[in-house]
Amino acid sequence: MRETYTIGLDYGTLSGRGVLVRCRDGAVLADAVKEYTHGVMDRTLPDGKTALPPGWCLEYPADYLEVLDFVVPALLRDSGVAGKDIVGIGIDFTSCTMLPVDADNVPLCQKAGYGGRRNAYAKLWKHHGAQVQADRINELLLRTGQAASPRFGGKISPELMAPKALETLEEDPELYRKADEILEAGDWVTRELTGSRERSCSMAGYKAWWNERDGYPDREFYGALHPGFADFARDKMPGKICPIGRRIGGLSESWADRLGLEPGTAVAPAVIDSHAGFPGSGICGEDQMMLVLGTSSVMAALSRRPYSEMGVCGGVKDALVPGYYALESGLAAVGDLFGWFTENMIPARYEEQARREGIGIHALLSAKAAELEPGGSGLVALDWWNGNKTPFVNGDLSGVLLGLTLRTRPEEIYRALIEATAFGTKRIMELYEKAGVSVREIVASGGISMKNPLLMQIYADVLGKPLKVAASSQAAALGSAIYAALAAGGEEGGYDSYEDAVRHMSRVREEVYMPRVEYAEKYKKLYALYCKFGKILGESHKELLLGLKTI
Amino acid sequence: MRETYTIGLDYGTLSGRGVLVRCRDGAVLADAVKEYTHGVMDRTLPDGKTALPPGWCLEYPADYLEVLDFVVPALLRDSGVAGKDIVGIGIDFTSCTMLPVDADNVPLCQKAGYGGRRNAYAKLWKHHGAQVQADRINELLLRTGQAASPRFGGKISPELMAPKALETLEEDPELYRKADEILEAGDWVTRELTGSRERSCSMAGYKAWWNERDGYPDREFYGALHPGFADFARDKMPGKICPIGRRIGGLSESWADRLGLEPGTAVAPAVIDSHAGFPGSGICGEDQMMLVLGTSSVMAALSRRPYSEMGVCGGVKDALVPGYYALESGLAAVGDLFGWFTENMIPARYEEQARREGIGIHALLSAKAAELEPGGSGLVALDWWNGNKTPFVNGDLSGVLLGLTLRTRPEEIYRALIEATAFGTKRIMELYEKAGVSVREIVASGGISMKNPLLMQIYADVLGKPLKVAASSQAAALGSAIYAALAAGGEEGGYDSYEDAVRHMSRVREEVYMPRVEYAEKYKKLYALYCKFGKILGESHKELLLGLKTI
Repeated sequence: MRETYTIGLDYGTLSGRGVLVRCRDGAVLADAVKEYTHGVMDRTLPDGKTALPPGWCLEYPADYLEVLDFVVPALLRDSGVAGKDIVGIGIDFTSCTMLPVDADNVPLCQKAGYGGRRNAYAKLWKHHGAQVQADRINELLLRTGQAASPRFGGKISPELMAPKALETLEEDPELYRKADEILEAGDWVTRELTGSRERSCSMAGYKAWWNERDGYPDREFYGALHPGFADFARDKMPGKICPIGRRIGGLSESWADRLGLEPGTAVAPAVIDSHAGFPGSGICGEDQMMLVLGTSSVMAALSRRPYSEMGVCGGVKDALVPGYYALESGLAAVGDLFGWFTENMIPARYEEQARREGIGIHALLSAKAAELEPGGSGLVALDWWNGNKTPFVNGDLSGVLLGLTLRTRPEEIYRALIEATAFGTKRIMELYEKAGVSVREIVASGGISMKNPLLMQIYADVLGKPLKVAASSQAAALGSAIYAALAAGGEEGGYDSYEDAVRHMSRVREEVYMPRVEYAEKYKKLYALYCKFGKILGESHKELLLGLKTI
Repeated sequence: MRETYTIGLDYGTLSGRGVLVRCRDGAVLADAVKEYTHGVMDRTLPDGKTALPPGWCLEYPADYLEVLDFVVPALLRDSGVAGKDIVGIGIDFTSCTMLPVDADNVPLCQKAGYGGRRNAYAKLWKHHGAQVQADRINELLLRTGQAASPRFGGKISPELMAPKALETLEEDPELYRKADEILEAGDWVTRELTGSRERSCSMAGYKAWWNERDGYPDREFYGALHPGFADFARDKMPGKICPIGRRIGGLSESWADRLGLEPGTAVAPAVIDSHAGFPGSGICGEDQMMLVLGTSSVMAALSRRPYSEMGVCGGVKDALVPGYYALESGLAAVGDLFGWFTENMIPARYEEQARREGIGIHALLSAKAAELEPGGSGLVALDWWNGNKTPFVNGDLSGVLLGLTLRTRPEEIYRALIEATAFGTKRIMELYEKAGVSVREIVASGGISMKNPLLMQIYADVLGKPLKVAASSQAAALGSAIYAALAAGGEEGGYDSYEDAVRHMSRVREEVYMPRVEYAEKYKKLYALYCKFGKILGESHKELLLGLKTI
């Protein structure tokens, strides 16, 4: 039998990575990574001078194509696999990361005369410039009684497509008019590769309120936000929606040539980066919850019925696994939060100690924090450094550290930050359980799940569930390779069913983090305080934290 | 005319410093400082092994005598003044810093068999081990309707004499019984020097609820707290109370010999360290507020009538300036807070930059923070790292940082901490004004007032009053030297009246920090948020912050 392979590409916040995977058994024969040349722009445009307002986060789309040019040839070279044996390409992408393009799929920021206009760039998923637009959309939802609809899930986040696009229209109407389409970056890449004008069901469903029965929201809805926005769906988001697990198109001649692959190779529709971890972590069952621990976190679980409330999205069928709704939410800052802490709050003597011991700063902090008792430092944090998705759905909420004293040490704060993200995760899991999902075990993936055993143990203790780790260190990229195998289909050496593909290509590690019962009581108390502080500062008196941003 | 001189000794939290001052014009001819050999013990006893519970802060009394042995000879040597021309010695001391002694004035911790018992040491002013005792005293005050009495001022702090002594009784009853007396450390030093068994009116009044009319609280009061505590005042705090501005005794032969001074030299009663800044800053008037900015802060203002509420003490006459009540409160952590921050939260790259530029870390942070706009970072802090004195009078409250985001920089937090202490100061000043004090200007002293112009300017902006700086860089020590001149009296080359002594020996610098009107509006908004967060977390929902300490 001919061996076949697929390539999965995982576009994250700071870099794109790829894996070359054998379809038969999921063996990863090569992997490669390319950091985005321009990184995340949150202070200035590429000119280094034009300042960005607070909350802005942009990227430069050409960086995404550099990933293809660097990663795909590297995978072929390192694995020794011939381009003709690659039967499919799948990509996953941060979302909603959106950009305006012209009729030839050229991003406006790369066109003459647009370089100095901030709305011409790709607005990254965590771009929070559109909070005022999100607020107005939420007012409209309340006013029209649509807030309760599963499409909107109670309250919408500024990270979605509509607030970001509306922000573009209101800040730079001429640029909005000039845009032939406004695309998810993931759709932009598949369009580059194939010429297909279809869009991913995953992104349209979770980030732009599309569903199979009704399509996008209607003219009246968009028009109520701004007269010029009425035809947003028709004019700026045309194109058929392609379900997950299918083929969106075939690789173009020019890209096949450029990458060393065969023209016509199956390309899967882009999926939301965090969702790709679902198949990539070996998850099939209804009683397993996926937990992706990256710069932010994502939690997904399968459900037989839709559920959308308090920032949990679960109104679209077939967008993750055929036949199911998938509940999705997560924390807006996890790795980012620890990164912020180590970058800004670690004294020189700690860095020196880490250097002396030849370990990383996270390893040093973890070792120190592991010696502390739960609750022993009297600290608790609200993990809202990048806003709160669930339950308060407000990107303008901000982080809080409570219980500081003159004896507080950096490792105590570090542990409190880890615990805060564990509490935030528990809060969401409880909502899933309320929605009828019965979580038996959790499968974690993402860099942190392999690098930070202290965090994993604290999560197991706080969540009270066994925590497993995906076998692949690139669960998302592997997931994309699995979707690529589905796009190729069984006849071409891929697979025809989701379950088959996952069973053959993906698995979970044997080690398990078990909850330690001796800490259950203390964490129950701390979690209760976390929830009470959260309710007061995020709900009953939220005008205070929000007021801090308007002085 | 014969030139005369006095020595003022200022015992702070970490060191004792002295000045040798010419009575005629207040010229400081020499100064010297000695750090305490054992420093502040807040983790273990001197054995380095016996761990202390959270909140404990001890000192080793022999360190205080080392200050005398080092500083006084150094002053004589450096100034060239002859010992016989020193007409008075005054000391000020942190308070309530208390210790148990035997009949020969030997601290119990220095006696065989007591070295391993934590209650045998000097409990430093900021020792917070006695919060449970303070809570019980507050319950008693509420139950018996005495809370409103000016003696107690609404609610009492764990930093006072009675909670600390009651803690000793309850933790180590045998040691409590063995103690011949329990003394303020300041009284312990004057007793060492003179043999006088009198105690300072300043400390007895502000820290042990003594007043001229009623003396200490009665047996019934102390007995209600603990049967064995009924005779606390009679048994453990005997000895007459010596008013401020007088002579407590004459220098003993042995100490005169040891220090190179004349036997019989006038020694003034010890004053609370922060109060000594009042004469030392050149303050005479009723419309001037003193602000001492040290590890903690103290605010004092003169009043014609008593006022004691919400942690403001002002029920004792003649304890600071003859003829007046003095309102006193302050923040439990100022310099300590900034010290905690720079020790624990400053990344290596900042320390490197400071080294490269040849400036201190505070100077670097100040320079960066000075470029920020008020409110621009969206941060506000509650300055309760060492509890809150006014208005919530609770040593178990803890610090809070609100408004953190992934863009938050160290200098933004540094500025938020400075602003928080300015807001806490404003809160207290508003209470003084409510009590009828009309604050026209503020005279600051203490290290921070000279070293941190950014802080001074922010205070002026937030408080909305002109802020002056005491001319002497050792206002407290100079104040002690002024009290020493009063103890000596005019006939011996000192002074007979407070006003005369202050007018001749002390002054204010010419430079003034004026409030900047353009920031008034923003600071008004931020201050309103500070007060609202404070009310919620320190009052309406205080069980949450307090709950963090009991997990």
